[in-house]
Amino acid sequence: MKQPLSTHFKIGFLGAGQLARMSSLKAFELGMQVAVYSDRPENEPVQFMTPFSFSGSFDDIDSMVEFAKSCDIITLENEFIDSEILRAVQDQSGTPIYPSPDSFALIENKLIEKQTFEKAGIPVTPYALINSENDLNSFGEKHGWPYLLKSSKGGYDGYGNETVRNFKEAKKAFDKLGGNNSREIIAEAFVDFTHELAVQVARNKTGHVVYPCCETVQENHINVAVKSPAQVDSKVSQRAQQLAIAATEAIDGKGIFAYEFFLTKNGELLMNESAPRPHNSGHYTIEGAIASQFENHVRAVCDLPLGSTELRKPAVVMINLLGAHKRDAVVENTEKALAESDGHLHSYGKLQSKPGRKMAHYTLLGENMDETFEKARNLTEKIEI
Amino acid sequence: MKQPLSTHFKIGFLGAGQLARMSSLKAFELGMQVAVYSDRPENEPVQFMTPFSFSGSFDDIDSMVEFAKSCDIITLENEFIDSEILRAVQDQSGTPIYPSPDSFALIENKLIEKQTFEKAGIPVTPYALINSENDLNSFGEKHGWPYLLKSSKGGYDGYGNETVRNFKEAKKAFDKLGGNNSREIIAEAFVDFTHELAVQVARNKTGHVVYPCCETVQENHINVAVKSPAQVDSKVSQRAQQLAIAATEAIDGKGIFAYEFFLTKNGELLMNESAPRPHNSGHYTIEGAIASQFENHVRAVCDLPLGSTELRKPAVVMINLLGAHKRDAVVENTEKALAESDGHLHSYGKLQSKPGRKMAHYTLLGENMDETFEKARNLTEKIEI
Repeated sequence: MKQPLSTHFKIGFLGAGQLARMSSLKAFELGMQVAVYSDRPENEPVQFMTPFSFSGSFDDIDSMVEFAKSCDIITLENEFIDSEILRAVQDQSGTPIYPSPDSFALIENKLIEKQTFEKAGIPVTPYALINSENDLNSFGEKHGWPYLLKSSKGGYDGYGNETVRNFKEAKKAFDKLGGNNSREIIAEAFVDFTHELAVQVARNKTGHVVYPCCETVQENHINVAVKSPAQVDSKVSQRAQQLAIAATEAIDGKGIFAYEFFLTKNGELLMNESAPRPHNSGHYTIEGAIASQFENHVRAVCDLPLGSTELRKPAVVMINLLGAHKRDAVVENTEKALAESDGHLHSYGKLQSKPGRKMAHYTLLGENMDETFEKARNLTEKIEI
Repeated sequence: MKQPLSTHFKIGFLGAGQLARMSSLKAFELGMQVAVYSDRPENEPVQFMTPFSFSGSFDDIDSMVEFAKSCDIITLENEFIDSEILRAVQDQSGTPIYPSPDSFALIENKLIEKQTFEKAGIPVTPYALINSENDLNSFGEKHGWPYLLKSSKGGYDGYGNETVRNFKEAKKAFDKLGGNNSREIIAEAFVDFTHELAVQVARNKTGHVVYPCCETVQENHINVAVKSPAQVDSKVSQRAQQLAIAATEAIDGKGIFAYEFFLTKNGELLMNESAPRPHNSGHYTIEGAIASQFENHVRAVCDLPLGSTELRKPAVVMINLLGAHKRDAVVENTEKALAESDGHLHSYGKLQSKPGRKMAHYTLLGENMDETFEKARNLTEKIEI
């Protein structure tokens, strides 16, 4: 591979959402060029940040090979592509892809992911592959109702998930998710948790770094905020960090990875989901940590030394700013948030706002978590998108 | 003007060097789009950060109007364009330019700049307009030899400056700088200074913010490093900040402005130069301050509330990394610098390295200035570009 800090070195992102956008900003800081591959028909904001923009579906190998050939290295910004396709793109283009197709194959859908981490001794939420209506019933009997049905591939932000309270709902959800149409469906037990935690790990041949264990705050099953560090016992945080490192090693991961955990009422940690890319739970690191998840994403896949994950202040809060309207995007009433010292507004530059769509986020650094959280909520409550 | 945080809002940079590049990164964080206008025939790195790239000379009004019409707001990244031309571009395109052509007209060349600030009560280095060979001699007799000859427009980084030790050298330099060819030449007295200081100010309708007074470190007349805060008496720092604010008010400046001062052996502050744009002396603010000069550049010209200029650590050091070779650019031996906690490498992505060319910089944050400075020098001494 060409030296990453040399003329015309180009990093390619498979996927063109806000994660590619924020990683690109860090690639630019290191003097790199950026290319993006989008599977969307509409303009993606990151396409306004580079002259090197490619489009095509995530199963169009030829298009992806053409894209990859124009780059020195390729990385992922989502998990919607099959590992076999990634492998073909890598082989046919000669351009390395990190996380590698081999690593990705070990977590590419929710079933394989759980099996991989179970095998590595990492506790996961109870689950089962659902092959038949009978399985729907027996899962409910074994783990209790309600439980969750998920398509094993392609879901995000709760899309592709259904909560089912009884057999009738389970059958309906199974069909809705495509279970009768040969989509792979898994059931997951509801976990009685006190906290949802997340940890990011960056790893490459120079070693690994782990971010503090943070806490995601949900309202109506939507992640509305992140607090770092998590307000839990330090033993729990350390354990979550250890599990996250172990998981990254289990897949021989090169890049940035995010892991979500449930902390149960019994104090047990169960891994819920992983992501082979930057993650919403780590957006707070842009200002909150010395080196952000996006910077370490770029460094990790390029085998550059990794940056410090230390927090800049004792309390860091990130608030997700979601669309409220279906309209041309405009972020309104930001004056107070912008004027606040150590408050940082990031808008993703999306052209259209939609109710619930992730449009922007706001990070506030402070000395005390409760105060910082309350202040961040107050500063952003009038923001309307 | 369109709301800056809305769909397709586009900021245009007149000039396409690393300053446009670093300001663009902050515009992107706020969800904006970026367009650039370059007067260079070769590819400029910022052109790899946007699909909206324009080229032409800085006196080609038609080309600049076309560029400006595609943008919601225009800003400057250098001072090479005439204010009359800026005014014509603004009038013909209908797109506002900030700093405004009126502000810029008050500082657009070294003679006018000194007159403007003198009138505002700001001490400047002794100077005179040189109209004839006779003036060359009388300036030397009045202020002593050696002194400096400068073309009043277009110089930067010491280009366009000549040190003259006697009448013979003065005549030669006057001719070399174009004085016999109707270029306006000024003489400036050598100032016996102990420190070169710099201050950045951002200002718009929401108010102004001022960065700490920092210190530029020169070796062989080249700015090799910046220390912030400057290691001078706090009264001197405060006075420099006050003069910088007064200067910005004197030109009714909207945007980010940088001011360089000499601190004389008598403890007097003399303004040396100003810049209506981000400045090398403020690169340290990217990580060193809560909001960087580039972020406040974007916020200021868009009339958004300004960000905090507070330092993140007691000592911030920025090292300029200059080209050593004439070759395709590659930044070598960066491992130690990248691995250092709170050390931050920025490469400008230039395609060609040349001896003395500004290619990259490195910022280190620490608790103590002397230690941090020494460490930063050590971490970067092996870097070769």
